[in-house]
Amino acid sequence: MPSKRPTLFFLLFPFLLSISLSFPTPVNSSRTLSLHKSKLHFDDQSLTLLWPLPAQYTFGNHTLTVDPNLSLVLSGNGGASGIVKEAFQRYKDLIFKHSSKVPSTSRVVYDIQKLSIIVQSDNEELQLGVDESYSLLVGKNDEHSIIGEATIEANSVYGALRGLETLSQLCVFDYGAKTVLVSKAPWFIQDKPRFEYRGLSLDTSRHYYPIDVIKQVIESMSYAKLNVLHWHIIDEESFPLEVPRYPKLWKGAYSKWERYTVEDAQEIVSYAKMRGINVMAEVDVPGHAESWGKGYPDLWPSPSCTEPLDISKNFTFDVISGILAGMREIFPFKFFHLGGDEVNTDCWNSTPHVKQWLQDHNMTVKDGYQYFVLKAQEIALSLNWTPVNWEETFNTFPSKLNPQTVVHNWLGPGVCPKAVAKGFRCIFSNQGVWYLDHLDVPWNETYYAEPLEGIKDASEQRLVLGGEVCMWSETADTSDVQQTIWPRAAAAAERLWSDREATSAPDTKLSALNRLEYFRCLLNRRGVAAAPVRNQYARRPPVGPGSCYDQ
Amino acid sequence: MPSKRPTLFFLLFPFLLSISLSFPTPVNSSRTLSLHKSKLHFDDQSLTLLWPLPAQYTFGNHTLTVDPNLSLVLSGNGGASGIVKEAFQRYKDLIFKHSSKVPSTSRVVYDIQKLSIIVQSDNEELQLGVDESYSLLVGKNDEHSIIGEATIEANSVYGALRGLETLSQLCVFDYGAKTVLVSKAPWFIQDKPRFEYRGLSLDTSRHYYPIDVIKQVIESMSYAKLNVLHWHIIDEESFPLEVPRYPKLWKGAYSKWERYTVEDAQEIVSYAKMRGINVMAEVDVPGHAESWGKGYPDLWPSPSCTEPLDISKNFTFDVISGILAGMREIFPFKFFHLGGDEVNTDCWNSTPHVKQWLQDHNMTVKDGYQYFVLKAQEIALSLNWTPVNWEETFNTFPSKLNPQTVVHNWLGPGVCPKAVAKGFRCIFSNQGVWYLDHLDVPWNETYYAEPLEGIKDASEQRLVLGGEVCMWSETADTSDVQQTIWPRAAAAAERLWSDREATSAPDTKLSALNRLEYFRCLLNRRGVAAAPVRNQYARRPPVGPGSCYDQ
Repeated sequence: MPSKRPTLFFLLFPFLLSISLSFPTPVNSSRTLSLHKSKLHFDDQSLTLLWPLPAQYTFGNHTLTVDPNLSLVLSGNGGASGIVKEAFQRYKDLIFKHSSKVPSTSRVVYDIQKLSIIVQSDNEELQLGVDESYSLLVGKNDEHSIIGEATIEANSVYGALRGLETLSQLCVFDYGAKTVLVSKAPWFIQDKPRFEYRGLSLDTSRHYYPIDVIKQVIESMSYAKLNVLHWHIIDEESFPLEVPRYPKLWKGAYSKWERYTVEDAQEIVSYAKMRGINVMAEVDVPGHAESWGKGYPDLWPSPSCTEPLDISKNFTFDVISGILAGMREIFPFKFFHLGGDEVNTDCWNSTPHVKQWLQDHNMTVKDGYQYFVLKAQEIALSLNWTPVNWEETFNTFPSKLNPQTVVHNWLGPGVCPKAVAKGFRCIFSNQGVWYLDHLDVPWNETYYAEPLEGIKDASEQRLVLGGEVCMWSETADTSDVQQTIWPRAAAAAERLWSDREATSAPDTKLSALNRLEYFRCLLNRRGVAAAPVRNQYARRPPVGPGSCYDQ
Repeated sequence: MPSKRPTLFFLLFPFLLSISLSFPTPVNSSRTLSLHKSKLHFDDQSLTLLWPLPAQYTFGNHTLTVDPNLSLVLSGNGGASGIVKEAFQRYKDLIFKHSSKVPSTSRVVYDIQKLSIIVQSDNEELQLGVDESYSLLVGKNDEHSIIGEATIEANSVYGALRGLETLSQLCVFDYGAKTVLVSKAPWFIQDKPRFEYRGLSLDTSRHYYPIDVIKQVIESMSYAKLNVLHWHIIDEESFPLEVPRYPKLWKGAYSKWERYTVEDAQEIVSYAKMRGINVMAEVDVPGHAESWGKGYPDLWPSPSCTEPLDISKNFTFDVISGILAGMREIFPFKFFHLGGDEVNTDCWNSTPHVKQWLQDHNMTVKDGYQYFVLKAQEIALSLNWTPVNWEETFNTFPSKLNPQTVVHNWLGPGVCPKAVAKGFRCIFSNQGVWYLDHLDVPWNETYYAEPLEGIKDASEQRLVLGGEVCMWSETADTSDVQQTIWPRAAAAAERLWSDREATSAPDTKLSALNRLEYFRCLLNRRGVAAAPVRNQYARRPPVGPGSCYDQ
């Protein structure tokens, strides 16, 4: 759905521009400047240290102090929102990590004592396409100004969350003054995302991540304004999720402790929602499902053919229905990922009863693959879910797929152009640039990857929902997942949030690098183990002593 | 100071043993059993999954349920302790991470509904040698029992913290029953540390760690019952700490954001104290101090001789006095580390005014080194600090050192035997086994390193205060510090806490490995990025998919 612009700012904007005469002249900037790399590049006041870059912004040259006892005035139809109130407290803790401890001098009068947040809608339903736009003003409150010192206006609570993140990035602790400052005020920011789907996938089958770790990942996603956690819960290696209708399935967990209860999964969804992040679950069929048979060996064609799932038994589809019906109660997101990738059907042909069933139904194994995928799609559709499939399903039988199907690219470039040309929606995850376990991809290749590459027609461009960076866990676990995700996930996050023009010209590379190094250090300051930006291989330790801002 | 045993348990112990007839017969075990490694080794009920191993413990074969609304009854002279109350809440959050979300069935009666903590002393001063002993009982509350369901008794609040950690490790969430269970009850544990100094050093000069990250390190230390954070704040690369008396010193920080205010440092100390962890600060002189001259170039002998500090100027010692006087207000720990390692005095001789000064005072450069170290010791002593020095000072002029000096071993084995033979106290940090940045040291070499190696005489053994694993940060930063520290720091932590006999025989290796793998996964469950135990090199990612408990 197209973003509706917030109203108050829209109405006030001419007025704000006229009163801005009482402020230093704002500098219009839809692009940051190219800078020569130097030790002191962060002292360059012309650099906008925001990540991802807002759609539109102007700034001035005043420095404002921010009260550690910043108060919140929340209004509009969404004025009672617990989501916004909790987020305000979280961001307050982040912003005033230092200065809240400094004994306040009673005489100090801070420039910014109050944050006004106006939320137009009281509808807190989180879905793809929810309005994430916001306006943010940070200016000195004086007699010339009719609006507050810091004001966020948004149509939805989720837009307000994005505005809070931006505000938190403008607020920087000054170690000299021991005060939080906003430089280059006044700021006028009008922002909204370029793509509605900005995802990160997490694979909890190759390694199990404790719920605290998944929460850490979600929290850090919110700092980069990502909005979909694609939870690749199950794969051939392990089945960690509780399925009440088929309780033996989580016998496929690695151990009795590497499991997620239904309540755990609900808590993940709820925690993510508080941060404006959707959770898209995946059940990958018919391949990548060997672990299912640990609890129910009947799901295997035979003990020597443990993948793909046995197409010949009703039980197989009963189990899929049971899993999805249970998950429907956990995952309100409108998309559900059914996998469908890397299906090697060889051993269907070498398992007598499966081969017989295929013959009886006049199917080749390829027909069987199609039959299985479409049958799984029907189950998801019957639960009011829009199916997402990895691109192999589209590559193999595009005309048979349900037209609602979202094609999830991964194998390489050029798939989304084909998918949208046939009217399908598409998610871009080209493994050459957006698979985070590919450690030899430097930040700038991730950054300049363009989801709309090769798509000219505007109506086709609209079918590209966005993209997703993928965190496969063969060699990632709790010990190294965050530094494998960050900072490259942030590079993709800006690609997906910010205007194409502002982030695509080659001459932006240096300023983008500077800002990304700054954002990586911001993640570190918030306790996130983001790795150095310029290491030759991702997630490698720093090569020697030095500043976070220069690695 | 020797630990005094808690009294109530001591008095009750014969009675407890007699009522234990109403429990299954406790299995006496001062050692865990050797086990054949297998996929299911953690299901072996004979394995005690505690880390570090308590001094004495008995267990039975009952399984008890624990109420997610566990209540605290705190009594004794320390019955009003905020430290214990806060710790109880922290541990409750850790223990009931899962089960608190499961809707409670009103009919369930839990075996353990209450935790009684009896703290004998209301003295909350934290120092080296504070009594960390505790007794812990976890048993079913029935008519035969006169004491509560779970009881911790300790002489000090810090013993109570150690008991809470042990209790939290006994409490395991059962995913089937969705309840926290204590297996092998009843447990009777009498525990106290083998060494009073159980340290981890953190170097915030080669890379800066944000305060949130230092807090994460401290929190994880408490899980392994470590009790000293040796904060190597400053080195030649950067000077991040604010020094009010010499405010230009933190110009030596890497950037204006890679700094610690006095309030930050105070908060670190306070946060650590809440977890029973002392903070020992270090100011390493006269070498390792180049960064001081960024703010005060006069501290450099010359622009081309920037290390060691200029011995010829009173200003140098004024600055050291000013730094230490400021730090005395932050760090109440009775030890202060003055470094003194790796001092290359060559350029003193090539700097005319320094050479002249040495000649005037009839000193060689080696004499100058001694003069500098001793003068710094005097400053520390005058501030009521006991000086700690790296072993080079002892190796070079043992008879001149203040007899209170604590010798900090690092270069290799055999130093503590020499130091204690001369009556000095010693801290063991042999770099071959306890330097965590040595990535090629496997867990078992860290584990079997013995601080008392080569020391036979009991009175000399008592002069070994303990040991410390060192986390130098040339290639460690926020992105990889926790997985460089863990799990090997835990191996050292058990060496320092648990009885030598229980942890030293070669046939303990398999059970120690199993328990360490379990503890590493416990760290992961608590959100700590501890690395796989059995990787060829420390902090490397897992080599392939698999269970946390088998890596």
